[in-house]
Amino acid sequence: MVQLVEVSGAEDPRVDDFRDLSTADRRPDRPGGRGLVIAEGVVVVERLLDSPYPVRSLLGVRRRIDALADRLAPLDVPAYVADADVMARVVGFHLNRGVLAVADRAPEVEPERLIASARRLAVLEGVGDHENLGALFRNAAALGVDGVLLGEGCSDPLYRRSIRVSMGHVLRVPFARLGSWPEDLELLRDNGFRVAALTPRADSVALRDARLDEGRVAVLLGSEGPGLTERAIAEADLAVRIPMAGGVDSLNVATAGAIAFHAMGGA
Amino acid sequence: MVQLVEVSGAEDPRVDDFRDLSTADRRPDRPGGRGLVIAEGVVVVERLLDSPYPVRSLLGVRRRIDALADRLAPLDVPAYVADADVMARVVGFHLNRGVLAVADRAPEVEPERLIASARRLAVLEGVGDHENLGALFRNAAALGVDGVLLGEGCSDPLYRRSIRVSMGHVLRVPFARLGSWPEDLELLRDNGFRVAALTPRADSVALRDARLDEGRVAVLLGSEGPGLTERAIAEADLAVRIPMAGGVDSLNVATAGAIAFHAMGGA
Repeated sequence: MVQLVEVSGAEDPRVDDFRDLSTADRRPDRPGGRGLVIAEGVVVVERLLDSPYPVRSLLGVRRRIDALADRLAPLDVPAYVADADVMARVVGFHLNRGVLAVADRAPEVEPERLIASARRLAVLEGVGDHENLGALFRNAAALGVDGVLLGEGCSDPLYRRSIRVSMGHVLRVPFARLGSWPEDLELLRDNGFRVAALTPRADSVALRDARLDEGRVAVLLGSEGPGLTERAIAEADLAVRIPMAGGVDSLNVATAGAIAFHAMGGA
Repeated sequence: MVQLVEVSGAEDPRVDDFRDLSTADRRPDRPGGRGLVIAEGVVVVERLLDSPYPVRSLLGVRRRIDALADRLAPLDVPAYVADADVMARVVGFHLNRGVLAVADRAPEVEPERLIASARRLAVLEGVGDHENLGALFRNAAALGVDGVLLGEGCSDPLYRRSIRVSMGHVLRVPFARLGSWPEDLELLRDNGFRVAALTPRADSVALRDARLDEGRVAVLLGSEGPGLTERAIAEADLAVRIPMAGGVDSLNVATAGAIAFHAMGGA
């Protein structure tokens, strides 16, 4: 059963998991080995409670902790209750969502396992921007993509900012890291996937003609700016483009992903 | 011919157009009546130079002003050259793009004129968030939408943040404000447009079945969260939904827009 604990001073060591969050989640030496999983706001905390990540504790203002009461009741963890000012001094900035939860990492999913159980996948290369990564997970969740494979150069989806921008869907959409890039794309083909590389190259097929809604499909997305590497495109089965008007550089990678995910027809 | 003027002190009144930018573009009492049009970075400044907005002056570090030399040569305005530190003290924050330009507003486009010349339009209701608004313009430009109509509750696309997030496409994609909302949607129908309201309502048609690539089409988008008002949906010819997986709240409005714009097939 959850333990409600009043915290009246920002120096209380029991809330150290929540201290100086704007820098703490970038430090691999934090408890949990590679940083804690941090959820902000009632909706994202609820998604954390539904996830495989073991919750360590919560910190929130009374009203938000009360809003979560039914969900917290079965948990055997402390829920620290503080006022907004104490919370702000602990985390290092004013937090307008009023509640946080921290969890430990869980063992990562093996790519083979994720691939075997999926029909539609997103595969990312070089997506280092935490907000883009979070937005990709949100779009994948909304549009029925079963999982995300991380290739070379991607940042960690469990960073605080990615979790927040994803609205917690990073905690719901399974992901796995590919070890050898781009050779491991072979794992997809071994499982009957067509791998479609999204690229503006002229010899690519327009998205609307690529029939990504048929069969098992993995869409390969590169970072905004440089785009996919030639090596990655060479490993794909087909190159697909979103037709774009002249004079426009490119779409944001999460936006391009959303257009492709919709074309996969999973939702 | 452009006048290069060295500025060595942050107090120089000649660069007052660039002063304290994080607040200045929210002040309607600035020169230009409703705030100046502010472009940041070489690419966006180039888009401003191509736009109908009359440039007043530039402020930049030597390297960025030099990068724009060919484009500036024919202009009869001052280009103030300063070092990064002086620039930071003028604008009120460190500016990593190294160059700014300011322009006056231009007379607004009449909706009738924009509608008459367009085949594909986006119509926005309640999009108050400057970043979402900017992202919508970027996506509209990339995906071949001819213009944007602003209904009730939209913020000003010419705010600095919207211009920046749009990568300057706010300056390129024509927009107009509708006076009576939602009655003015009638203007669209008078010009042979089908008005498609994007809404998750169950009685809506799936986007892939709505054939938005045929004829003159206007896509009606509401703000994230509340979505379109019932009044606006009632004025539309059809309701269209992007199919979404269970348990997901909604897509970001600019992302939903991008999926619909792609379906319009303008690019």
